[in-house]
Amino acid sequence: MARPRQPILSVERIAGAALKIVDRSGEFTIPGLAAELGVSPSSLYNHVSGRDEIVELMRGVASEGIHMPEDTSDWRAAVVEICWQYRNSYARHPRLIPLLTAYPVSHPSTTRMYNRLADVLAGLGLTPADVLKVITTLDSFVLGSALDVAAPEVVWNPGSQASPALAAALETPPPSTEKRAREAFGFGLDLVMDGLWQYVQTARIAAGAGLP
Amino acid sequence: MARPRQPILSVERIAGAALKIVDRSGEFTIPGLAAELGVSPSSLYNHVSGRDEIVELMRGVASEGIHMPEDTSDWRAAVVEICWQYRNSYARHPRLIPLLTAYPVSHPSTTRMYNRLADVLAGLGLTPADVLKVITTLDSFVLGSALDVAAPEVVWNPGSQASPALAAALETPPPSTEKRAREAFGFGLDLVMDGLWQYVQTARIAAGAGLP
Repeated sequence: MARPRQPILSVERIAGAALKIVDRSGEFTIPGLAAELGVSPSSLYNHVSGRDEIVELMRGVASEGIHMPEDTSDWRAAVVEICWQYRNSYARHPRLIPLLTAYPVSHPSTTRMYNRLADVLAGLGLTPADVLKVITTLDSFVLGSALDVAAPEVVWNPGSQASPALAAALETPPPSTEKRAREAFGFGLDLVMDGLWQYVQTARIAAGAGLP
Repeated sequence: MARPRQPILSVERIAGAALKIVDRSGEFTIPGLAAELGVSPSSLYNHVSGRDEIVELMRGVASEGIHMPEDTSDWRAAVVEICWQYRNSYARHPRLIPLLTAYPVSHPSTTRMYNRLADVLAGLGLTPADVLKVITTLDSFVLGSALDVAAPEVVWNPGSQASPALAAALETPPPSTEKRAREAFGFGLDLVMDGLWQYVQTARIAAGAGLP
């Protein structure tokens, strides 16, 4: 029964193998994962409780590259920095994204990121309910933008059906997908930050508070 | 060789069966699709040229529910209306989203939506390059938000690791996922529209043009 040539099974190996399968195919199964690792499904359950935990382990791997800014005294610079790191990390695993959004977030490294965002946003004077809505807005925009990084060289190919305004727009992007996606993300993040700043100012004036 | 009990193969049936498989598993293969339809892979190729065309057909099915607003005289109301319809339509097929973003957009019904967006945005005086960036921003935010509709009842479950600000925020969402996701999308869309309006005004002032 011993498999001396197999490295010892660990949560790290399980997460890595599951992520490899998801990157390839967009989904994983416990039997498929066991086969990839050359073990029986039951031996997987000695290390993980099931599918939910494996998704959470993959979230941890995808979040590894997110380093929180030390200095959050400039709220906007801090939020922008977190969003860029979040987007760049998840862009490496586009097929994982719909699995991540279908399961509750509990991994410590991801929680660290949401803690930092919540702290910075609450520091602006936003109510807890608004903090959650802003975090959800950033989440949705970042995850959609991470998918955009995996877009093909030519994103839109409408042929003769494009209106003159759309045709003119489609002639403008930079020649590389990476650069096009990066410029669009920076532009969109600025729009969201400008809208957020305006919202914070309006909310504070309405509450009779000073500007932050 | 005749299969009298099988409905006649058509691009509609192929798209519907492929979407059923993707909704279930996040991916499809030509042999798997042929098996689902009870036909041989080669008979599929009598109707579609391959994988790219099948993805595009699924995009068409997912976009069917998007009805363009007749009146675009209020640019903001028109863009907001398009984004809501786009989000609601794609939210029905969250597992399809990473496939859609990985292939060029060419389906006529989707092109119709992008045409309308480009026309409205160009009408604000935005340059073609900015029109493309705004469309990409809206795309990313809408697709991320469509994934959020498929989120579980409890999106964040950080336990004792939540900071006080995050813990307070997580106590605020409405009890249903549908309502939480809807309120967050409306809030985020407002932020993006406010940021966009500010950008349009600044760009027009810089160009010495009047306000739209």
